[in-house]
Amino acid sequence: MNQQRLWSSLQKLATFGASENISEEGITRLSLQKEDLAARKYVIELMKEAGLSVKVDVVGNIIGSLKGVDQTKPIVMTGSHIDTVYQGGRFDGALGVLGAIEAVRSIKESGIKLQNTIEVVSFTDEEGTRFGTGYIGSKAMAGELDETILQLRDDEGVSYEEAFCQAGFQPERYKEAIRNKEAIKAFIEMHIEQGKVLEGNNLAIGIVTSIQGPVWMEVTFEGHADHAGATPMNMRYDSGLAMAEVMLDVEKIATQYGGVGTVGKLRIEPGGVNIIPGISKFSIDLRHIDKTKRIDMVYKVREAIHQVSNKRGVSAKVDVKKSVDPKVCSPKVMEAIEEACHQLDQPTMKLQCGAGHDSLIMANITEMGMIFVRSKDGISHHPKEWTDTEDCAIGTQVLFNTLVNLAQ
Amino acid sequence: MNQQRLWSSLQKLATFGASENISEEGITRLSLQKEDLAARKYVIELMKEAGLSVKVDVVGNIIGSLKGVDQTKPIVMTGSHIDTVYQGGRFDGALGVLGAIEAVRSIKESGIKLQNTIEVVSFTDEEGTRFGTGYIGSKAMAGELDETILQLRDDEGVSYEEAFCQAGFQPERYKEAIRNKEAIKAFIEMHIEQGKVLEGNNLAIGIVTSIQGPVWMEVTFEGHADHAGATPMNMRYDSGLAMAEVMLDVEKIATQYGGVGTVGKLRIEPGGVNIIPGISKFSIDLRHIDKTKRIDMVYKVREAIHQVSNKRGVSAKVDVKKSVDPKVCSPKVMEAIEEACHQLDQPTMKLQCGAGHDSLIMANITEMGMIFVRSKDGISHHPKEWTDTEDCAIGTQVLFNTLVNLAQ
Repeated sequence: MNQQRLWSSLQKLATFGASENISEEGITRLSLQKEDLAARKYVIELMKEAGLSVKVDVVGNIIGSLKGVDQTKPIVMTGSHIDTVYQGGRFDGALGVLGAIEAVRSIKESGIKLQNTIEVVSFTDEEGTRFGTGYIGSKAMAGELDETILQLRDDEGVSYEEAFCQAGFQPERYKEAIRNKEAIKAFIEMHIEQGKVLEGNNLAIGIVTSIQGPVWMEVTFEGHADHAGATPMNMRYDSGLAMAEVMLDVEKIATQYGGVGTVGKLRIEPGGVNIIPGISKFSIDLRHIDKTKRIDMVYKVREAIHQVSNKRGVSAKVDVKKSVDPKVCSPKVMEAIEEACHQLDQPTMKLQCGAGHDSLIMANITEMGMIFVRSKDGISHHPKEWTDTEDCAIGTQVLFNTLVNLAQ
Repeated sequence: MNQQRLWSSLQKLATFGASENISEEGITRLSLQKEDLAARKYVIELMKEAGLSVKVDVVGNIIGSLKGVDQTKPIVMTGSHIDTVYQGGRFDGALGVLGAIEAVRSIKESGIKLQNTIEVVSFTDEEGTRFGTGYIGSKAMAGELDETILQLRDDEGVSYEEAFCQAGFQPERYKEAIRNKEAIKAFIEMHIEQGKVLEGNNLAIGIVTSIQGPVWMEVTFEGHADHAGATPMNMRYDSGLAMAEVMLDVEKIATQYGGVGTVGKLRIEPGGVNIIPGISKFSIDLRHIDKTKRIDMVYKVREAIHQVSNKRGVSAKVDVKKSVDPKVCSPKVMEAIEEACHQLDQPTMKLQCGAGHDSLIMANITEMGMIFVRSKDGISHHPKEWTDTEDCAIGTQVLFNTLVNLAQ
């Protein structure tokens, strides 16, 4: 594989949605916004240059195919996503898409004939940043999308359905994106670790054994927006303080159960310095590798919300926006990755995955595995997210061999 | 005075900046924005209709004068403001300006000749919602404005100086707005109570004895915007949780000292569901009738910020945006109001004022007093802010008599 070509494509993709000072303010390339639409064109161009035949499905998943010798065999699929969070980095998702294109391009260039067709997929909206729910492309493939998702609206009031139509896709035909289980042999995703385990073990590559599934909740507290000067402390119904209590409860509960819990998005209304917050709206992200414990965490958080609501006399509304089961990776795919590392004399280790990925969803319809690549300081979803050129290349080489191992 | 004419003008002023559903979403008429500029024209028109001679000073204070018989005597000033908070109500500030115009118009119509000139003032930017600091017009009159205020920027990045210039004022000449202490005999402000004391005592009118001065602080915590899934709880530098702790500390400290403390404005960055908040920025509003206790409250809050910052490994920055001393009202003006109530057989009571007002600032250059008018349910800074037609009229009649008592 061509390390320089891969690196150039990563740098080029990073220009779509880049702020003026990318190292400080990063990349904002939210799903189906103009920066994402421009980046999609670039990915299609790159797939074509790589000699893949490209199609885009009804929900915007970009699929590049390298035809196998035996078309009756199930395909081997690899890929990730190109949308980012607000002020995100250059590698999350991007490495999995561009690395897959580079690996398949190199397979083709090296003249290797594979039995199975390989598909490289760039999934629509993994992050869920714009509409509050993610894994849209992989959910469509796995048959997990439903009408309600199309009615979600972004902060500007645009519905998901409208955004799809404006981008030229056919959301009303979303069921046509569903893939037949029997037609897919395996799904492999290469991704940056977004943690510090590989760095701490001085390893470029890791083999994922299981993935934490996130639960996303949206909580709305409603109290009274009274005057900050004229309302004594004991006559207040302050929704902001209710939110503050629950934020600290989430931390306590996550720590107690050995999972993670985060309030990452919040706003209060009306938002004046001298007005008590009438409405507070915030997200809760809860994860645990063990589904039973995660269910307990959700229960405890709901209980805390209920108690705070009663204590402070504010009403509470809780919406579950996303709930993805944790998943164990396929031993068959893990073996193929391990064999690839062995072939390349590449030291590696097995580790758990804390973040959610399209792989979580794809695991519902096929054998799933993930290759992790070392992240500098574990920083991710941040402008300072970084993976060295060499590590990107090693990961892509491991992916190359894994695909050959699975499709030969 | 004409109750119907006053009420019509209140309803008309409420249309500037009104949302489609005013009872639910209220009025947003931030200082020097187009809604405020349109409302200013209406106020000028109304003053002219009332037979006042109108001038607008260099910082946009609108001043309508009814000439007294003896021009060598100091003037009696009354007024309030017409800017609102986000989604504010119809009466805060508005009643004090429109009631003053109605009172002076009625004095003129009834043919009463007063010795002292009366000035009705509509002050620029009392609320401070747009640029984060208020009392701009009264500060300019009292000689308390300085250059730094002109450099403040709103959420869109517009500086105060630019906003002034765009509105046709002369911010660089702000010192020309300063009024001579000897030239002003007294300042009286009629205002809705924004609390429930009068309602609880079944009284339409109250005489204010003292005003709490607010301290406004802006706090910025900076931690690390790491990935919500891949960052264990004990490796986080979550600025949002630091903010949540301080919010609850503010509540505790205000309660302990018998003052009030509020976090009414906040935001976190980057603001993704699955990203730990890197930056959290929020306001703190602290008030106490006793200045020494207020100083102690500020000290305790700073201490809490410092402790949370250390404990969570996030940096903290604290800016004091406003610090207005609490003020005791002038016995002379209180007497004039009391006498007015007596003349009208209007039962009344004395009470403290929790909110800040232009009166706080005017107290630095003249004898100051306030007439409070009953608020329904004490609601203010909110679409449901309400004062009955009759109460508006009674307050205006009391103001009429007070002005006559002071200027005859």
